[in-house]
Amino acid sequence: MTDTALRPGSTIGILGGGQLGRMLALSAARLGMKSHIYCPDPQSPAFDVTPLKTIAGYEDEQNLQAFAQSVDVVTYEFENVPVLSAELVARHTRLAPSVRALEVSQDRIKEKQFLEGAGIRVAPWAEVLDRDGLERAVKQIGIPSVLKTTRLGYDGKGQRMLNAPADIDSAFAEIGGQPLVLEGFVPFEREISVVVARSANNQIAAYEPAENVHEHHILKTSTVPANISAKTAELARATACKIVESLDYVGVMGVEFFVGNGTDAPELLVNEIAPRVHNSGHWTELGCMTDQFEQHIRAICNWPLGDTQTLVPVQMENLIGDDVLGTISAAPGAQPHLYGKAEIRPGRKMGHINRVHRAQE
Amino acid sequence: MTDTALRPGSTIGILGGGQLGRMLALSAARLGMKSHIYCPDPQSPAFDVTPLKTIAGYEDEQNLQAFAQSVDVVTYEFENVPVLSAELVARHTRLAPSVRALEVSQDRIKEKQFLEGAGIRVAPWAEVLDRDGLERAVKQIGIPSVLKTTRLGYDGKGQRMLNAPADIDSAFAEIGGQPLVLEGFVPFEREISVVVARSANNQIAAYEPAENVHEHHILKTSTVPANISAKTAELARATACKIVESLDYVGVMGVEFFVGNGTDAPELLVNEIAPRVHNSGHWTELGCMTDQFEQHIRAICNWPLGDTQTLVPVQMENLIGDDVLGTISAAPGAQPHLYGKAEIRPGRKMGHINRVHRAQE
Repeated sequence: MTDTALRPGSTIGILGGGQLGRMLALSAARLGMKSHIYCPDPQSPAFDVTPLKTIAGYEDEQNLQAFAQSVDVVTYEFENVPVLSAELVARHTRLAPSVRALEVSQDRIKEKQFLEGAGIRVAPWAEVLDRDGLERAVKQIGIPSVLKTTRLGYDGKGQRMLNAPADIDSAFAEIGGQPLVLEGFVPFEREISVVVARSANNQIAAYEPAENVHEHHILKTSTVPANISAKTAELARATACKIVESLDYVGVMGVEFFVGNGTDAPELLVNEIAPRVHNSGHWTELGCMTDQFEQHIRAICNWPLGDTQTLVPVQMENLIGDDVLGTISAAPGAQPHLYGKAEIRPGRKMGHINRVHRAQE
Repeated sequence: MTDTALRPGSTIGILGGGQLGRMLALSAARLGMKSHIYCPDPQSPAFDVTPLKTIAGYEDEQNLQAFAQSVDVVTYEFENVPVLSAELVARHTRLAPSVRALEVSQDRIKEKQFLEGAGIRVAPWAEVLDRDGLERAVKQIGIPSVLKTTRLGYDGKGQRMLNAPADIDSAFAEIGGQPLVLEGFVPFEREISVVVARSANNQIAAYEPAENVHEHHILKTSTVPANISAKTAELARATACKIVESLDYVGVMGVEFFVGNGTDAPELLVNEIAPRVHNSGHWTELGCMTDQFEQHIRAICNWPLGDTQTLVPVQMENLIGDDVLGTISAAPGAQPHLYGKAEIRPGRKMGHINRVHRAQE
């Protein structure tokens, strides 16, 4: 990564053709940039917003190399890009965020080790390599706790709650046989997240925390302002800034936190980090001068970061599956963003709606 | 035009590949729509934001027909689409705005006749068919006045100011030999414009007036709120609504007004109308929940119109020619939108910047 800003007219390569890639490409266009989408799925929604595409697998070295050589910088919209593929890309062009950001965020154990090394507090945890290891971990961490696969978990997949010793057997039967981690269950009051950006020049800017509510393990709403103290909000932002600085990170990152009541549970624990634009940051499209998608493009192009101040309070609602059918007749005062996915499936994120949030006071 | 709303996943055909077509396509994508751009210039900036394009002339019947048949609705980003081409398109698919809207806005005389017929006040005018006709028109309208070609004028092109009888000869020598109109010069205090939308279901919504400042006959800034009375603002909005209703119009229209001081000049005169999204409406990207581009897509797809309330006051500044070079280092608090034009030329609109406008009070 050099210090030179990419000029308008440059081409951004995006690994991944889902809605996040699509929204990145739309924002890149607003800065006068072109986008080239790389994705194995020919039905990818991001293919509808640019003429430049490669339909190929993430392990197709020849296509990856041609892709990397045809663009000015490569970024990614999901954290499960194979590390070897990212390394190959980085040999041919700028890659942001880095390979290291992928390595850390792909593996819950590496993630926790990195965070603790940076002085950031996470829930108590223990590595679980086998059935006996799970017994030892339960002794150390206690119950209730959550057994998770170390890799490829999202939207509640690859997780089992342990509420009683009897759950140990069934949880291990269901997700054992791969690297696992046992995490102490945090009796948190709410979940918040901070979207933070860092550019190669070490400029760092964090949006204010959003409060997240999940349904069926999928994010349902993100609301700004979060119902937390100014002190907690400041701590969350500062923690997010510390994470991107410690990781020498370039781009936008989503940082999820548990907020405790300060007695049963600590004030703030980091749940996980995502090396990409984040669903809980979609509120910035309506709430801020510069939204998270433009911010990511600015960061990876080494432009000055945009303004992260909240202009209007916002509630973002995800449109899951059939939810999207009501969008056309949505009441005024709503800003919908649909992802152009051809097929509606239960649990599939089809779009989101931002509304100005009038807090009940 | 039927009353049925187009579903997400439908394809919008756009005649014209400039920045307005590009911004329409970006907004269509946010509603889950695809866009197909039709333009003769292979370097058109709108071609960068969709894989669907036709590079062909506006009088190429075969390509126009294939284009019309491949999309669900056709719209246009400029008012000089040939009427015969629009008629051909309308025989094969929905066209919005209509052929009639093109006819009226392409010809200053038809435009004035339409406006006066709808009870809307314009500057005094007289048709000029030849040199003698110009003498007669000057007797009727007086001096100062402005001689204009009836067709194809924009950004001050095709206009000559008559400040003294001696100007008559030179003005006619320069732009005579084609249909002309002489307009009484209005000693206006300021120029404002209203962006208004109407859907096929006769839902009508107008944004608040923006105050426009030109430099070298090109729009430089649009500012909201305009420095006018609430009464004048209300009259301007009501007039714009009356125009789209009288024309049975579908889509977004820009209506330009002269604001007089009420003594030397009337309170409000319509200068011209544009049957498309309008440069003076770019402020809505930052200022409103639904911007003019989304509003146009909503109107032509027969979705309910979005909210036109101003959320934050905005000043929009056009980036003309070299202006664009400073964008990368623009101060925070600015929302740039660059058009991705390959070549910077003097007088060429390269982008615009929206800023929150803090009025001097």
